[in-house]
Amino acid sequence: MIKIAVLGTSGYGGAELLRILNAHDGVKLNYFGANTQAGQRIDKSFGHFYKHFDSIMDNKELESVCEDNDCILAATPHDFLANILTQNMIEKCVVIDLSADFRLKNPNKYEEYYNFTHPNIPLLKDSVYGLSELYKDEIKQSNLIANPGCYPTCSTLCIAPFIKHGIIDSKSIIIDAKSGVSGAGRSTKLDNLFCEVHENVKAYGLINHRHTAEIEQNLSHIADNEITLSFTPHLIPMNRGILITAYAQLESKYSMITEQEIQRIVEDFYTDCYFIRVLEYGVAPQTRWVKGSNFVDVSVCLDKRNNRVIMMGALDNIVKGAAGQAVQNLNIRFGFAEHKALEQLPLFP
Amino acid sequence: MIKIAVLGTSGYGGAELLRILNAHDGVKLNYFGANTQAGQRIDKSFGHFYKHFDSIMDNKELESVCEDNDCILAATPHDFLANILTQNMIEKCVVIDLSADFRLKNPNKYEEYYNFTHPNIPLLKDSVYGLSELYKDEIKQSNLIANPGCYPTCSTLCIAPFIKHGIIDSKSIIIDAKSGVSGAGRSTKLDNLFCEVHENVKAYGLINHRHTAEIEQNLSHIADNEITLSFTPHLIPMNRGILITAYAQLESKYSMITEQEIQRIVEDFYTDCYFIRVLEYGVAPQTRWVKGSNFVDVSVCLDKRNNRVIMMGALDNIVKGAAGQAVQNLNIRFGFAEHKALEQLPLFP
Amino acid sequence: MIKIAVLGTSGYGGAELLRILNAHDGVKLNYFGANTQAGQRIDKSFGHFYKHFDSIMDNKELESVCEDNDCILAATPHDFLANILTQNMIEKCVVIDLSADFRLKNPNKYEEYYNFTHPNIPLLKDSVYGLSELYKDEIKQSNLIANPGCYPTCSTLCIAPFIKHGIIDSKSIIIDAKSGVSGAGRSTKLDNLFCEVHENVKAYGLINHRHTAEIEQNLSHIADNEITLSFTPHLIPMNRGILITAYAQLESKYSMITEQEIQRIVEDFYTDCYFIRVLEYGVAPQTRWVKGSNFVDVSVCLDKRNNRVIMMGALDNIVKGAAGQAVQNLNIRFGFAEHKALEQLPLFP
Amino acid sequence: MIKIAVLGTSGYGGAELLRILNAHDGVKLNYFGANTQAGQRIDKSFGHFYKHFDSIMDNKELESVCEDNDCILAATPHDFLANILTQNMIEKCVVIDLSADFRLKNPNKYEEYYNFTHPNIPLLKDSVYGLSELYKDEIKQSNLIANPGCYPTCSTLCIAPFIKHGIIDSKSIIIDAKSGVSGAGRSTKLDNLFCEVHENVKAYGLINHRHTAEIEQNLSHIADNEITLSFTPHLIPMNRGILITAYAQLESKYSMITEQEIQRIVEDFYTDCYFIRVLEYGVAPQTRWVKGSNFVDVSVCLDKRNNRVIMMGALDNIVKGAAGQAVQNLNIRFGFAEHKALEQLPLFP
Repeated sequence: MIKIAVLGTSGYGGAELLRILNAHDGVKLNYFGANTQAGQRIDKSFGHFYKHFDSIMDNKELESVCEDNDCILAATPHDFLANILTQNMIEKCVVIDLSADFRLKNPNKYEEYYNFTHPNIPLLKDSVYGLSELYKDEIKQSNLIANPGCYPTCSTLCIAPFIKHGIIDSKSIIIDAKSGVSGAGRSTKLDNLFCEVHENVKAYGLINHRHTAEIEQNLSHIADNEITLSFTPHLIPMNRGILITAYAQLESKYSMITEQEIQRIVEDFYTDCYFIRVLEYGVAPQTRWVKGSNFVDVSVCLDKRNNRVIMMGALDNIVKGAAGQAVQNLNIRFGFAEHKALEQLPLFP
Repeated sequence: MIKIAVLGTSGYGGAELLRILNAHDGVKLNYFGANTQAGQRIDKSFGHFYKHFDSIMDNKELESVCEDNDCILAATPHDFLANILTQNMIEKCVVIDLSADFRLKNPNKYEEYYNFTHPNIPLLKDSVYGLSELYKDEIKQSNLIANPGCYPTCSTLCIAPFIKHGIIDSKSIIIDAKSGVSGAGRSTKLDNLFCEVHENVKAYGLINHRHTAEIEQNLSHIADNEITLSFTPHLIPMNRGILITAYAQLESKYSMITEQEIQRIVEDFYTDCYFIRVLEYGVAPQTRWVKGSNFVDVSVCLDKRNNRVIMMGALDNIVKGAAGQAVQNLNIRFGFAEHKALEQLPLFP
Repeated sequence: MIKIAVLGTSGYGGAELLRILNAHDGVKLNYFGANTQAGQRIDKSFGHFYKHFDSIMDNKELESVCEDNDCILAATPHDFLANILTQNMIEKCVVIDLSADFRLKNPNKYEEYYNFTHPNIPLLKDSVYGLSELYKDEIKQSNLIANPGCYPTCSTLCIAPFIKHGIIDSKSIIIDAKSGVSGAGRSTKLDNLFCEVHENVKAYGLINHRHTAEIEQNLSHIADNEITLSFTPHLIPMNRGILITAYAQLESKYSMITEQEIQRIVEDFYTDCYFIRVLEYGVAPQTRWVKGSNFVDVSVCLDKRNNRVIMMGALDNIVKGAAGQAVQNLNIRFGFAEHKALEQLPLFP
Repeated sequence: MIKIAVLGTSGYGGAELLRILNAHDGVKLNYFGANTQAGQRIDKSFGHFYKHFDSIMDNKELESVCEDNDCILAATPHDFLANILTQNMIEKCVVIDLSADFRLKNPNKYEEYYNFTHPNIPLLKDSVYGLSELYKDEIKQSNLIANPGCYPTCSTLCIAPFIKHGIIDSKSIIIDAKSGVSGAGRSTKLDNLFCEVHENVKAYGLINHRHTAEIEQNLSHIADNEITLSFTPHLIPMNRGILITAYAQLESKYSMITEQEIQRIVEDFYTDCYFIRVLEYGVAPQTRWVKGSNFVDVSVCLDKRNNRVIMMGALDNIVKGAAGQAVQNLNIRFGFAEHKALEQLPLFP
């Protein structure tokens, strides 16, 4: 039995970790961390856990949490864990960090996109980027796994096959993203009030959303070559779900590529990836078909008239975009079946 | 391995049976019935099943379905199964009927509320009403289980303790119910269009909704005495969930009852009922806390000033209100643990 | 031109006053008050006002606001205006108060329901309760009009005809209410976040919601006799709208009343009331049919089997339930046509 | 008084024409046409019109409708009006057609995108495309005005200034569009059911949505040069609203353009356009700020890193995207103030 500490249990991501791990018979939930809500019973904050999680949320020193547990899953805010985590701690305890603190390999990006100076560059160097399908071997070996962001997970998985094979012009990538509101977390900001979101759609974070840096890093790594792109997220009046619609020009040598060939590229890329469901050609992903599950539905569409491809993907931002992928990484790291506790089918409607 | 046939797989209830049973390792899904959609692949109709249910929906004769399976779960329309089911069939195969065809013991009620003459009164007499928590012993023995309606399940569970103990005046019961839209099924009616439902709340089925007869039957049976009541359902712009707010006058001998006493009555009534979560006094049920699960959250509130009690409950209309309770009944009937395949926690948000 | 000051322009009620008064050619919007948002441009807070209201919100002393204007419309929080308003001020300026500060004639009710001691009982005595249809003559003469709450407006209008004529047992009234989220205001509370409200329905304020006192006062006044009742509000995942479903027992002498007779009672009661639309018998009100307008749709249903009536109503909580009724009162008080600036039809879908 | 016939009063577009024209004191609503709902009272279909529109919908011959009225506003399905309208009719009566029947100047496009052969090419040639801000002079003179589609209105207005001035590479245009559900009309299709749309976002009409041809025609006309582009619409779980996020590469000679300059281009382009609200630089449009109004909020954002511009716009698809623009065109054609009956501010929340 792996002993698990979950940090940030008062947020949507932390609660989702509890929901998923409750179905995992290889782990023991041993510690429930929170900050401002420490001292409160979990099920007072999240009524769906009534009769299942009635522990008091706690805020012990990280040092002692590391000592008492085999694995920490941290759904904490950015600029928190990096400040207190040490090399010594991760030698005792595997840390899967759902925040951005260890995702960006270039520390300058933290100043540019997150407004803080990264406090622990050696740890940053040691960390592994936990996009499960792409870095499974590294994840198996790592004690510090940077769990990817929701938009970067979906965007990278949509575009990776085409970058990998040099099919698209890497200077032409435009990602138009749509997300449900849970991605904004459980903080009480005016912009997240029901009446402000309902019956509305808007773009936000124009040209400088933090996930831009993460997506660019991922695709650059695959291309082995610096990529910049446009990323525009939109807020959709729904609880869960991310939809990516990405556009790029075909490289001229692929201008005659057929629908069958382009479909084949995606299917081959994701062979043996249980959670990636490549849709039949002509079918567009929809967030309702993945809600509550760890699946990513991807598809591609050839826009012959404009010599372009449209690369699309849908996932549940709290599952594959956060807690689900963290559990997937936990499974990979500790030798469980990759989909353990993640077999649940999507909930529709 | 119990061989299962699901009828009505093209509707929300049928699809939910598949979702739940997919996690049940004691059964084999062996037949997928549908009517107008027969011939189509399941996952073409329900994209969340992509890569999981790719069978073609079929519409064989019921006779042969009974022969090939141990249990039929029928999520078919009213006035369908009663016309073709025979005594002979249920001797070969357990039938759990999610429609209303075998719920009302008084056949006249079918004419009054459902506009048809019940075609098989002997079978109606033999059937057992499958409100799992109240009729477990009967369910264990029956080959024809009438799975309760969504409103009746929630209403009966809220009010039963007080009727049982004679605490409320049985002539004073008023049930004000609220339901998400999935309760209306997947049929393409104007009233179920997004733009007609969204940003709206309305009462419907005033004074003669079909579930009135079913609730009255249930409570009358508990009281051993004819009860009539007012039942007013409302349509709420959400996918899943039923909330019951029921009102009744205290019997005069209980006019001095305390909050502690009345709370105790509910708690004692549901001792050992895994799926009934009696909330702490003063906490009102909310549909978000049960969504996607088989739980029923119930609570009671004493309105001293008016000598009344307010009895409340919340459930997921497609799970405990339909498919989940059907699987619970399957588990009871075939000797599985009652919550097998139903342990999944609610999905929030 | 009547010079108008609007207080509380940073909230939904205040903004709605601006929206409506923008179409009123008999008034001049002269002052825009706010508290924490003072100093900000109105259209920065409410983007729909871009190019229409670009004034800076201000927080002058009330004294000077009274001197500079003919009428103040105050959409301020409870326990604010009562503390600073004086007899002297209302001699210079008509005040229409959208808060509860002058609604309850019995000052003890403020301690019981609002947790404050009313600071100005003489003014409270002088104020007129602004339910336009019932107190038009008093409104015409008053300089301090207490604009009714949203639930009390709808509840009172539904039930008044039956209380007036002694048709229902006044001890048996149960009001089950449903409201959209804008009724909770624009404050940043966890409970109002999109993800907490969406896909949810819940009761709140059980047995002691503040509007209980106001509804009881209204009906007691009509009955000329002390009435207590049960009032249970529910939160619905929509922006605007209130739906009332109220139940009461018929007085025994009216047990033989017919549908025609009971329909006639409502129709006669609201003759010449432009904003009250009495629906045809058998039609239930729906919030979508009144959204954005000052209409109240009311109807009644006879529940013969239970010797009960169901009294129903729908209105837009920010219009007839707040800002619209305030403008209606302004029109009545200053001699404009009652529906001036309020002719706009509902917005559907 | 201009005598008006509205065709298609049983749909959302037709109903919106009635709502808007009800506030227009220069016209008389004289005829209410419908097809399958002919014979029914308008307010039975649209409850918000109760007490305001109780006429019976009719389906007279178009010939006689033309004779009895000064103007027909036709919110009829595609491939309807073109088949029955004649030159003779439009000599007697101005026709504003909200369908696509007269929008595409190249008749081949009807075969390509609408699956019918245009039956009246001479009339098609005579018709004027009614994008009010761009073709006001032509509209003033025309008796057959083709009212633009919702997506084309918003897309064209966003992109036009940059095409006009040659600032963007016309081969690089990508339009990612998001629409509320009312755009799909009031027909009872599975895809429009509440439970299918709610908690979902999806792309549809990939690479061949009908509005592609209309947008390309509009921009090609402005550029005086054949433009093709990618247009991807998405369905958003809300009633009203369209949001356009369009991307294009800067022409190389404009690679040094500043934010101020690019902002200025849009502001200058829409000088004196009452309904086009150019937002301040850095502010993104949101559909909630235009709901229920005829405004179009547009803005532009410079993506220096990628040498791109992002052109954005929001409108209400039933108002400026359909009925509102039709009334605007009516006003222009008959010499009323352009915003007559369209002054109503947006409804928020």
